[in-house]
Amino acid sequence: QEIPGKEKKWYDNIHLGGYFQVRYNNLFETNPDLECEQCDEFWGADGGGFSLRRMRFKITGQIGERVFMYFQPDFAKSVDGSIHVARIKDAYMDIGLDDRNEYRVRIGQSKVPFGYENMQSSSDRLPLDRNDAINSGVKDERDMGVFLYWAPERIRHLMKELKPYKHSGDFGVFGLGIYNGQTANHPDENSVFHVAARFSYPIKLKKNQIIEPGIQAYSGKYVLPEVSPEVHTNAAMEYLDQRIAASFILYPRPFGIQAEYNIGKGPEFDKSTLSVKEKSLHGGYATLSYFVQRGHQQIIPFVRLQSYNGGKKHELDARSYEVMESEAGIEYHPFKHFELVAVYTVSDRRYEDYIKQNNHQTGSVVRIQAQLRF
Amino acid sequence: QEIPGKEKKWYDNIHLGGYFQVRYNNLFETNPDLECEQCDEFWGADGGGFSLRRMRFKITGQIGERVFMYFQPDFAKSVDGSIHVARIKDAYMDIGLDDRNEYRVRIGQSKVPFGYENMQSSSDRLPLDRNDAINSGVKDERDMGVFLYWAPERIRHLMKELKPYKHSGDFGVFGLGIYNGQTANHPDENSVFHVAARFSYPIKLKKNQIIEPGIQAYSGKYVLPEVSPEVHTNAAMEYLDQRIAASFILYPRPFGIQAEYNIGKGPEFDKSTLSVKEKSLHGGYATLSYFVQRGHQQIIPFVRLQSYNGGKKHELDARSYEVMESEAGIEYHPFKHFELVAVYTVSDRRYEDYIKQNNHQTGSVVRIQAQLRF
Amino acid sequence: QEIPGKEKKWYDNIHLGGYFQVRYNNLFETNPDLECEQCDEFWGADGGGFSLRRMRFKITGQIGERVFMYFQPDFAKSVDGSIHVARIKDAYMDIGLDDRNEYRVRIGQSKVPFGYENMQSSSDRLPLDRNDAINSGVKDERDMGVFLYWAPERIRHLMKELKPYKHSGDFGVFGLGIYNGQTANHPDENSVFHVAARFSYPIKLKKNQIIEPGIQAYSGKYVLPEVSPEVHTNAAMEYLDQRIAASFILYPRPFGIQAEYNIGKGPEFDKSTLSVKEKSLHGGYATLSYFVQRGHQQIIPFVRLQSYNGGKKHELDARSYEVMESEAGIEYHPFKHFELVAVYTVSDRRYEDYIKQNNHQTGSVVRIQAQLRF
Repeated sequence: QEIPGKEKKWYDNIHLGGYFQVRYNNLFETNPDLECEQCDEFWGADGGGFSLRRMRFKITGQIGERVFMYFQPDFAKSVDGSIHVARIKDAYMDIGLDDRNEYRVRIGQSKVPFGYENMQSSSDRLPLDRNDAINSGVKDERDMGVFLYWAPERIRHLMKELKPYKHSGDFGVFGLGIYNGQTANHPDENSVFHVAARFSYPIKLKKNQIIEPGIQAYSGKYVLPEVSPEVHTNAAMEYLDQRIAASFILYPRPFGIQAEYNIGKGPEFDKSTLSVKEKSLHGGYATLSYFVQRGHQQIIPFVRLQSYNGGKKHELDARSYEVMESEAGIEYHPFKHFELVAVYTVSDRRYEDYIKQNNHQTGSVVRIQAQLRF
Repeated sequence: QEIPGKEKKWYDNIHLGGYFQVRYNNLFETNPDLECEQCDEFWGADGGGFSLRRMRFKITGQIGERVFMYFQPDFAKSVDGSIHVARIKDAYMDIGLDDRNEYRVRIGQSKVPFGYENMQSSSDRLPLDRNDAINSGVKDERDMGVFLYWAPERIRHLMKELKPYKHSGDFGVFGLGIYNGQTANHPDENSVFHVAARFSYPIKLKKNQIIEPGIQAYSGKYVLPEVSPEVHTNAAMEYLDQRIAASFILYPRPFGIQAEYNIGKGPEFDKSTLSVKEKSLHGGYATLSYFVQRGHQQIIPFVRLQSYNGGKKHELDARSYEVMESEAGIEYHPFKHFELVAVYTVSDRRYEDYIKQNNHQTGSVVRIQAQLRF
Repeated sequence: QEIPGKEKKWYDNIHLGGYFQVRYNNLFETNPDLECEQCDEFWGADGGGFSLRRMRFKITGQIGERVFMYFQPDFAKSVDGSIHVARIKDAYMDIGLDDRNEYRVRIGQSKVPFGYENMQSSSDRLPLDRNDAINSGVKDERDMGVFLYWAPERIRHLMKELKPYKHSGDFGVFGLGIYNGQTANHPDENSVFHVAARFSYPIKLKKNQIIEPGIQAYSGKYVLPEVSPEVHTNAAMEYLDQRIAASFILYPRPFGIQAEYNIGKGPEFDKSTLSVKEKSLHGGYATLSYFVQRGHQQIIPFVRLQSYNGGKKHELDARSYEVMESEAGIEYHPFKHFELVAVYTVSDRRYEDYIKQNNHQTGSVVRIQAQLRF
């Protein structure tokens, strides 16, 4: 494809893309006190207006035969209550270890290989927010670390074929790595790395169906970032942080299933003793979807059920949670690059810390999102 | 223009541009206590050096037949006293409702259709800062919202013809929308939208002259962001915020006029009762200019007179203002992409809040700006 | 090279590039209390994990015959303890004064012409951090200002030839300018400019060797940014800030020397009187290197010795320093765009302020960096 005598230009090697999401979170809201800090800071917030959930652009490129780069800032992050500030999401390099880059070492801030939905881009996900259960393991999905990924060429071709079906992108068939463990954009607080491993394998069945079962686990020591002064904690506020999860995906051709479940141990606020204790946790979700193609248009109805029972280490006092939630929604693509989503959510959430020791919120709401991707 | 067999690349669909402004605000300054928070935080600030007023780049593109994107961060914003931080200015998508995109829905953070000078890019404006009177209605000119714009193709062609004469860009002949009302980069604080509408129509006269009369209004409830603890306010610090404005533009071929005036109601600090009250406000400006073209060079002398009488809702205690200001300046383009501006400002400003209850500053200063646009 | 009839596109005029650095600072660390705030905030920090030292991309271009732009943000900066926030490094324009742009005026935030290593990009430097002695004169190397640069065409060609040998880029043979003096991303605090001048001249010797001797100086009044309340200072916390430095470079063909030394005066914490006083300072460094080329690969062993004795004006209480440090390292380029560095550092640092009045730390550590450049 290269014209002889024509040298490569900078724009041949790198690619600029991105997406952003505008939301309205308050239609037919029955309980303004119902919120989900991990999901969307503007859901159940003081005001009831429009908000920008993500404003990302990315610069990526296979800039050398063995060298790949991925840099993605988000301009809709917060710093100390100031919104719409630019901060890093991903900043990593992939170094190929063999000629076909089947083995790669990934260095920098990148996604921790734990959970299919965590790996998947938010621009592809059907529900507006990630599930509480798996995502509370690695809030913001990323961390500073070094990861080894392996993906044979044959499977990579299959992954490309899966792209229209909201596949997670090439995070390898096998991933193994070490990382700081305090989640993205937080510096390390102890000298112990977290370790994570994941194995996920797409399989082509008869009748044109493709499934992808997966398994993953991580373990480490987490240092609590925020504790009320009255609450008792371990010395150095350091806690075991350990999970294992199973994933099952049936790609939507046209009917799809995406289900994951994890169990583990981590810090959790205990209101009877006003302390943070190491406790067990468990939870998961299942998303069912149906892809309808009408000419250039796509319509995807979906439902999701989820539950979570455990602490959220990254929140105040490792806040204690008990979540049951069901959602039904429709994602609609009237043209390329643009999509609209409307979701009806019925939620039952108990979430308690030192400040709100008895806090059980239930309610329903319709949320709407417009997304542009380029 | 497309070469057959050549697929479109990412750089064919999107465009990268931007501009930045370096200023020196202190030449022949007669009163260092004279300042204008809304205009330029480095005018009358502690130091007397160089400053970066704006550092913007933008990524825009008609990425689909009906889908347009506009993303513009500014890297010279502040967060809690830290300067030169990247934050969003614009992040919106335009969805065309008809084949010629004469009707468009704009979703995201974008300019509120209120005021010609507000719509105009700061890289085009002759005076260094926007006028106090209209701009205090929508500080930073933008908000999160959904807007409908209409511009017939014939008028759009005329707008393109006007570009060398510092036309505001295509914000439609008619605009109507709802928005949060707390101004750009501030989350919504109540559940009531602001509503704004604007009608502005360029008309070609004889002798090659073009005028553009316009009218616009908005209404909503604004929640004060910052109030001294000693000051009395309404419950929930919520105030009526309502304005109507008229605009008249004679495009500079070669003599130009740009004049606007608005009246309305909004919160204003009342020092006799130490409270914030709903009060009426009024003010406007007129800018006169003369375009001189000498080969590739442009020289544009201009004067501006402005007055404002009312509160500034977005400042501490909805600070009370009485402004009379006159300016004379020259904008000089020695080559493409680069311009120099020097402005002599004579200002008379009373601005009072709980902390400074008697604060009347007068003085004059010469300010200089170098601007690069790419 | 231009195809007739083809207009120039935006991507022909501007260039996008950048680099980022991932570090591990804690291998075989003998003293966790040994740190260097000016070098790397994650060296000797609480945690012991991976960190992102720089995440930069730049947009540059000769956008007109006489107009050049350079914009470089860093996405790995901090704001109030929040890491990975995007802030400006460089934002300047060059205006050519003659047809060949041998004389240029640089306006905006750019590098202050003081020190060869300061001028050099961090992506080129062999040691991980800049030396304490020269860099403490202009922390972050940059400031808001206006500079005149002169470089005759003949020397420019020589500079291009030097690029593979980690030359600093074209900062002119002669540079002279005024700047705010409070260092990059800090607003001016007084109305007195700093003045800096530099002369640096590459000379081709026999046997293919090239040397570059240089001399530079600056002078101004600096306002302390951070002082403990118990510490006595001058009125207005303003201090003389004045340095002169000599540089000598032998470009590594294959053996290289880079050495610099400066003396001067500036604020320094005095623990006997608990005050900040104007004191003299001195210090410098020498880096020796040897370039080995093996096919496409490069291996560069190096050592650096440095000392510094004086205050650091930009740190708390103009912290008092006495530094002796030696380093030995290897930089390895297995492929284009990617490099690995490992450095063994032996350090002896006394650094004292009001809070730590007796603080002498010694120790050694191995630090590792992976760098991608595009």
